[in-house]
Amino acid sequence: MASLAVEKTSSGRDYKVKDMSQADFGRLEIELAEVEMPGLMACRAEFGPSQPLKGAKITGSLHMTIQTAVLIETLTALGAEVRWCSCNIFSTQDHAAAAIARDSASVFAWKGETLQEYWWCTERALDWGAADGPDLIVDDGGDATLLIHEGVKAELEYEKTGELPDPSSTDNAEFQIVLGLIRDSLKVDPKKYRKMAKKIVGVSEETTTGVKRLYQMQANRTLLFPAINVNDSVTKSKFDNLYGCRHSLPDGLMRATDVMIAGKVGVVCGYGDVGKGCAAALKAAGARVIVTEIDPICALQACMEGLQVRTLEDVVSEGDIFVTTTGNKDIIMVHHMKQMKNNAIVCNIGHFDNEIDMHGLENYPGIKRITIKPQTDRFVFPETNNGIIVLAEGRLMNLGCATGHPSFVMSCSFTNQVIAQLELWKEKTTGKYQNEVYVLPKHLDEKVAALHLGKLGAKLTKLTKDQADYIGVPVEGPFKPPHYRY
Amino acid sequence: MASLAVEKTSSGRDYKVKDMSQADFGRLEIELAEVEMPGLMACRAEFGPSQPLKGAKITGSLHMTIQTAVLIETLTALGAEVRWCSCNIFSTQDHAAAAIARDSASVFAWKGETLQEYWWCTERALDWGAADGPDLIVDDGGDATLLIHEGVKAELEYEKTGELPDPSSTDNAEFQIVLGLIRDSLKVDPKKYRKMAKKIVGVSEETTTGVKRLYQMQANRTLLFPAINVNDSVTKSKFDNLYGCRHSLPDGLMRATDVMIAGKVGVVCGYGDVGKGCAAALKAAGARVIVTEIDPICALQACMEGLQVRTLEDVVSEGDIFVTTTGNKDIIMVHHMKQMKNNAIVCNIGHFDNEIDMHGLENYPGIKRITIKPQTDRFVFPETNNGIIVLAEGRLMNLGCATGHPSFVMSCSFTNQVIAQLELWKEKTTGKYQNEVYVLPKHLDEKVAALHLGKLGAKLTKLTKDQADYIGVPVEGPFKPPHYRY
Amino acid sequence: MASLAVEKTSSGRDYKVKDMSQADFGRLEIELAEVEMPGLMACRAEFGPSQPLKGAKITGSLHMTIQTAVLIETLTALGAEVRWCSCNIFSTQDHAAAAIARDSASVFAWKGETLQEYWWCTERALDWGAADGPDLIVDDGGDATLLIHEGVKAELEYEKTGELPDPSSTDNAEFQIVLGLIRDSLKVDPKKYRKMAKKIVGVSEETTTGVKRLYQMQANRTLLFPAINVNDSVTKSKFDNLYGCRHSLPDGLMRATDVMIAGKVGVVCGYGDVGKGCAAALKAAGARVIVTEIDPICALQACMEGLQVRTLEDVVSEGDIFVTTTGNKDIIMVHHMKQMKNNAIVCNIGHFDNEIDMHGLENYPGIKRITIKPQTDRFVFPETNNGIIVLAEGRLMNLGCATGHPSFVMSCSFTNQVIAQLELWKEKTTGKYQNEVYVLPKHLDEKVAALHLGKLGAKLTKLTKDQADYIGVPVEGPFKPPHYRY
Amino acid sequence: MASLAVEKTSSGRDYKVKDMSQADFGRLEIELAEVEMPGLMACRAEFGPSQPLKGAKITGSLHMTIQTAVLIETLTALGAEVRWCSCNIFSTQDHAAAAIARDSASVFAWKGETLQEYWWCTERALDWGAADGPDLIVDDGGDATLLIHEGVKAELEYEKTGELPDPSSTDNAEFQIVLGLIRDSLKVDPKKYRKMAKKIVGVSEETTTGVKRLYQMQANRTLLFPAINVNDSVTKSKFDNLYGCRHSLPDGLMRATDVMIAGKVGVVCGYGDVGKGCAAALKAAGARVIVTEIDPICALQACMEGLQVRTLEDVVSEGDIFVTTTGNKDIIMVHHMKQMKNNAIVCNIGHFDNEIDMHGLENYPGIKRITIKPQTDRFVFPETNNGIIVLAEGRLMNLGCATGHPSFVMSCSFTNQVIAQLELWKEKTTGKYQNEVYVLPKHLDEKVAALHLGKLGAKLTKLTKDQADYIGVPVEGPFKPPHYRY
Repeated sequence: MASLAVEKTSSGRDYKVKDMSQADFGRLEIELAEVEMPGLMACRAEFGPSQPLKGAKITGSLHMTIQTAVLIETLTALGAEVRWCSCNIFSTQDHAAAAIARDSASVFAWKGETLQEYWWCTERALDWGAADGPDLIVDDGGDATLLIHEGVKAELEYEKTGELPDPSSTDNAEFQIVLGLIRDSLKVDPKKYRKMAKKIVGVSEETTTGVKRLYQMQANRTLLFPAINVNDSVTKSKFDNLYGCRHSLPDGLMRATDVMIAGKVGVVCGYGDVGKGCAAALKAAGARVIVTEIDPICALQACMEGLQVRTLEDVVSEGDIFVTTTGNKDIIMVHHMKQMKNNAIVCNIGHFDNEIDMHGLENYPGIKRITIKPQTDRFVFPETNNGIIVLAEGRLMNLGCATGHPSFVMSCSFTNQVIAQLELWKEKTTGKYQNEVYVLPKHLDEKVAALHLGKLGAKLTKLTKDQADYIGVPVEGPFKPPHYRY
Repeated sequence: MASLAVEKTSSGRDYKVKDMSQADFGRLEIELAEVEMPGLMACRAEFGPSQPLKGAKITGSLHMTIQTAVLIETLTALGAEVRWCSCNIFSTQDHAAAAIARDSASVFAWKGETLQEYWWCTERALDWGAADGPDLIVDDGGDATLLIHEGVKAELEYEKTGELPDPSSTDNAEFQIVLGLIRDSLKVDPKKYRKMAKKIVGVSEETTTGVKRLYQMQANRTLLFPAINVNDSVTKSKFDNLYGCRHSLPDGLMRATDVMIAGKVGVVCGYGDVGKGCAAALKAAGARVIVTEIDPICALQACMEGLQVRTLEDVVSEGDIFVTTTGNKDIIMVHHMKQMKNNAIVCNIGHFDNEIDMHGLENYPGIKRITIKPQTDRFVFPETNNGIIVLAEGRLMNLGCATGHPSFVMSCSFTNQVIAQLELWKEKTTGKYQNEVYVLPKHLDEKVAALHLGKLGAKLTKLTKDQADYIGVPVEGPFKPPHYRY
Repeated sequence: MASLAVEKTSSGRDYKVKDMSQADFGRLEIELAEVEMPGLMACRAEFGPSQPLKGAKITGSLHMTIQTAVLIETLTALGAEVRWCSCNIFSTQDHAAAAIARDSASVFAWKGETLQEYWWCTERALDWGAADGPDLIVDDGGDATLLIHEGVKAELEYEKTGELPDPSSTDNAEFQIVLGLIRDSLKVDPKKYRKMAKKIVGVSEETTTGVKRLYQMQANRTLLFPAINVNDSVTKSKFDNLYGCRHSLPDGLMRATDVMIAGKVGVVCGYGDVGKGCAAALKAAGARVIVTEIDPICALQACMEGLQVRTLEDVVSEGDIFVTTTGNKDIIMVHHMKQMKNNAIVCNIGHFDNEIDMHGLENYPGIKRITIKPQTDRFVFPETNNGIIVLAEGRLMNLGCATGHPSFVMSCSFTNQVIAQLELWKEKTTGKYQNEVYVLPKHLDEKVAALHLGKLGAKLTKLTKDQADYIGVPVEGPFKPPHYRY
Repeated sequence: MASLAVEKTSSGRDYKVKDMSQADFGRLEIELAEVEMPGLMACRAEFGPSQPLKGAKITGSLHMTIQTAVLIETLTALGAEVRWCSCNIFSTQDHAAAAIARDSASVFAWKGETLQEYWWCTERALDWGAADGPDLIVDDGGDATLLIHEGVKAELEYEKTGELPDPSSTDNAEFQIVLGLIRDSLKVDPKKYRKMAKKIVGVSEETTTGVKRLYQMQANRTLLFPAINVNDSVTKSKFDNLYGCRHSLPDGLMRATDVMIAGKVGVVCGYGDVGKGCAAALKAAGARVIVTEIDPICALQACMEGLQVRTLEDVVSEGDIFVTTTGNKDIIMVHHMKQMKNNAIVCNIGHFDNEIDMHGLENYPGIKRITIKPQTDRFVFPETNNGIIVLAEGRLMNLGCATGHPSFVMSCSFTNQVIAQLELWKEKTTGKYQNEVYVLPKHLDEKVAALHLGKLGAKLTKLTKDQADYIGVPVEGPFKPPHYRY
């Protein structure tokens, strides 16, 4: 851990990345991505001149990729000051991190962090020195938000009982690290996280998993600052989750294993937006797809698309490629993996790494692990001498084994993020947002979509006044009732 | 109109159908359909013994097809007494009408009604003699509901001012008929519709267009009884609207024209659930599909599926097959049709017949109409001698030219109807439902889906308690938050 | 059989059709079809003026549909005199037959012939009175050719031994009729078929099954006149067989049963061109498709498209829709049908009706047959009370239950027929064609395709001389070596 | 060129690869590939014990990938001695080359050869020292065969006229190198290539382009040894070319550019097997696909799949991704590229690099080349400041930017190669093969397919004797006539 020291650019900006010499390469790819991200570029054009984020300190915890680089530089173009970390140990693209660290913002991220390093990076991204903390958070999965809430909880407990958090009180290896971090900071400043929480104007959360945490905190009345649920903007969940995964699942499979998808049996666990994208991709590539589902509605949707719906137990020895997309835990267990065909591929594209029982696999008696290349491991069971191939150690395989979602679809998601940050900052003193979870209004959702049509050569039809009246909507939209499902 | 007399079966049941001798044929197809409608049959099995609809008088205004026959006989199997009419002049299947009229319920419906006949049938279906009116309504498009609301409005006006409704006050030919009907009933019983409205426990509405009317009445506080919006059950709008149309659009095209779809350019106006189904069907059959849209989000979805988004003006001379799916009016006008290729096909699959400018077409100077066969007409423009082929006179082409949606998907929709009717009747005295619009709770939506999985051989995965807690849902569901879009 | 008398139009033309009053309706649909059949219309434009078929008497035995009507009128437009029958008892469209009989050629065909009637019609189509027989034959499945060859065989045998053909010598009910017919004609004119065979310049054969017979006769050196194999023109077998069936299989299923295809399990027996079209259609409509195959190459193609390859035995109780496409016999036997799900659909789209064991089914002890409507029968097994639904009595379901392939794809096939007839007639005295089987040269195949591109708005790229030399082809084509598979 | 020295392993085997330390990584991936290549492994099992290639010296010129490594080790497992080079400067996978060089055969190949180095490697692979040359050649594109034929031609010319080949006699940079090479060898041994040609038993050629050359030599009677056309085995051209490209085109696009394919316009030049695979892949990923074609039959096939057929000129400013698949030259010229959208992607998946006018592009006045990363270059036109992105410098993008076709489909192709090599070697003294081009018999083609079905869980149906007789084939196959197109 000696090496975990913050470095400084010549201009004095903090950072810690893998290899600053990749900054030029990162810059070239950022420039390509800009052409594919019309929503973000439109934000720069529309809002750049008025600098509406002037004075805002933003901490981001979100995969430090090329696309995120374009997001960060949109935030800075609008006047913000930014510190950033990745929200997954494997998801950083090192050339993107280098370019941003050199040119635009403080970055603490590299591909292949240990968990200890991961949380150190998160802490650094939240560390605004004398300023107590950030004004705004861009979160993905909710780890930055979690650290603050856990910190506050521990400080209150400590104030009340004098007891420091005890890492040994939990079995969860990652949560042990979080508690250790908080314990250490408590000794230095027992009010650190409360000052930080107080300063924060709000968080905008990117993904299903993080949103679920926020709604739970809202229900428990423990949420410490307003939150905007970006995930449930239509232009996020019905695009990024669906079309993003349709693109990046086969990309990850190909880069990691070069396996021919055609002719294979793909088993997709979960048929939500992510599962729908994954199943569509595998089917399009010529696989036969089997879905597992708990929800009868989603299951019936799968049937209507010609997919079989079975339980994992029924098909575990039939599948060639297994993908978890549930957002739940304990989906593919070691006893499942043991029954699989030789060289069956097992991977996860859900946010957290608890869908696949990596702990059970790694600790299986006599298991042999052969690393084919980074993020592609073969685990051989001693009884059968059959191996299975696990991608990205059970973490997000599209970010671990490939480069995540492509720029265009991320432009939709990230334009929602920019709009959410603008909204929170604009209303910081008006009381419009309480410590609750909000979604963006439909007209902004429609605006995000509209900003992406030109690039694809699409041309919208305009309602006449008479038609608009007939269906009871304004001529300029929004065009649908809130419950509309798209 | 002399012939518009109610007939009676030997058992004394009222009816008016095309040809009672088709009842046996209808019965055979009903029996086939029952095997494809597991949701309805499950309702009979679950609720039949307890006769929960005992005493309920139900009026239905919904396409009198084979599938509807299974719905009607499910309602009667649960104890209800039923009177029925179609909600479209072309949508009745005469053998279905005959079988039901003979065996189960009062039916007033035949394929190819005039508008005058159509409203006469609607009036008959609402006419429960001394009972004042029905207890419950099953509506599709809202025409039964409309007649009652217009009736009440006219009665109040008449009571206040002594003025009878004046058909000549409107240009709309159909509304003239409605006003005439109400005027005539006012003379007989000036409280008829108010007594009827008062008696009605509630309506369950089938489709987007009818739901839109209900929400407008709710907003205007003019809704006279509770309404359940069946259309927006997921198991209705995301199945019937989408997968139903994916099936029945090509079916209608083939039966009406035998045209080869492969290689053609299909233009789909509107990319909602219905438009998505139509576009998917045309693409799957080998057409190139162009979409017109007003909503940027739906437009962007079309792009992501590889469809072009253009305005009708841009592609009017390029298309071979034009389909309106908007739920709006004035979509394809006569000036568009004039520019189309020779023998371009123009059809509508939206609920009402005002998407295509039939009035403008029929009254175009010098236009020549050649009826190829019923519901397939060629209109030849005098300037070019080019003709276009219009299906079902601009009305629902899948019901006019084919047999509508297949049984299985209608089983989903109609199981929602049965559940809605049960719910309204059960709560008739509890005050649970006010004069507002309600959707069915998610657990019932999920139940409808679950009832249809077995027939397709699908097998659900069960959550463990631990997993359910982790994602914060009950083990038995519902599994998703209300805003979830599927 | 008393009614089997030839009738005569006012102009003295022989015919026998179902209902001459449908001629106007037939004419309207023929006019629509002409717009969809650019290849045939181009033949009329190119060759009509020079009347190259002047003097040619053509007998056709090919499904008497609207599309065939356009073929017949192309042949007459080029100068030929034509007599026609259908090659399947269910495939005639009566309005097409009526229009042609009234306006253009002698037709002997109606939907729902008995086998006896069928062969009577074939005999009539070959009966050119004093002219001994036709000059040319357009055959589909080879029945006209078969009758002549069997006739000649019997005449030679009779001449040698004095023995007449004995219908009781065979178990095959249809072949008994053929032998009876020949026996009767032998008594009248013992040289009839030899005179006919001698007169015939050649036959052009439409389909796989007929071609197979021709190659067997060529191998046995028993072929009595030259034959052109139209089936194996690329623009026939890779279009009509594939894309035609992709269109007409779901059309037939929908018209016959209205069954929802989505979510069902479709079992396609055979994965040749026809099977590929059927599997693609079912998959596109949302079914899960299982293929049975004998040929490992075709089986591997199915796998690459994500289809399962299994034996019928393995999946007989899993399938919802079974389609035979093999061109072989004894594919689905009564013992298979007995194991199927209740209301499983069983149908055949191959040329002959021996793929499904109709004899075994109809004679199963205790079987109950319920005719839902013509060409849709439910057979109920006594042991289980489960029924299966058989389409078109095991004959070509797309022609029996719907209207066969659409005009556009038939235009490709039939343009090949016209070209083949022109070629045979042109070379009738040159000795170019021996009593063997020929395929059309590639440049004519390419021409057929080219004639169909304009209608679809397709625009070809032209080779430069330099490019043509580089790949070693003429600038104007043909562009591919003979073994090219497309 | 000083560095172009042959190295030797500790066991004395010649080689020249990039980095021998990657041999372990290569070995791991080879082991994975073996599981995906059942055809090759079955050959080892069936033929390994009898060592049928004992004594055979084989030179291969074929992309030195992981899959090729499994081919090479199958040849050596059957007894052969092997020397190998790549047939494309970018297609080598260095870890595969290292593993083979270390363990199994002499390899001369690395990713990113210069043309000079490429031909040096080819010369080394053909250099069997005192043995005069190889017994057998495995060729891909025909470069090894070309070098020998050009060498022989030059030797004969030299013998006749004393004139050495003159590199300056041609404009073609690559052919200059070939002539230089031959000139230099002529000085050393003026009979080298004639001795080599005489020794060679035969060549088996992998791809369309090489096959075309062979047929031209056959036509010109200049072919010096027998050739087996592996490309036109069904299990090669209808699998590798089609399904291989369907897999590897998007793989290459994603690895090179991370571009979102959905929503984009893909322009595919050529709709042969390779073009069909590319178009299917782009469509499946959500692109709108436009095809350019010279052949009306292929064009009509594209139409039937819903693809637009246009000329490049018409769509050059509309496309986002351009792919050449023609096997012809001068397809996308610099004047086309100049008109393209900013950041349009231009790539080639045909064998040779003359489909895209790289020479014109590189020499365009004022052009600016920005290398994003190896094999991904942006060329910016001075007039517009718009750039286009060129992949793999116009060479095979799937091998240059990704890893080529996946193992499973290559197993089909390479099993044909092994069978061809076995056949040539077995018949080396029987005179069965003359200096002509042969395809493998259908029963071997079917065998290759059969060997790949088990891995995919497919199960074949068996013909009965009765059925086999009915369709006139042996019970065990072959099942189709030679002209069958699949």
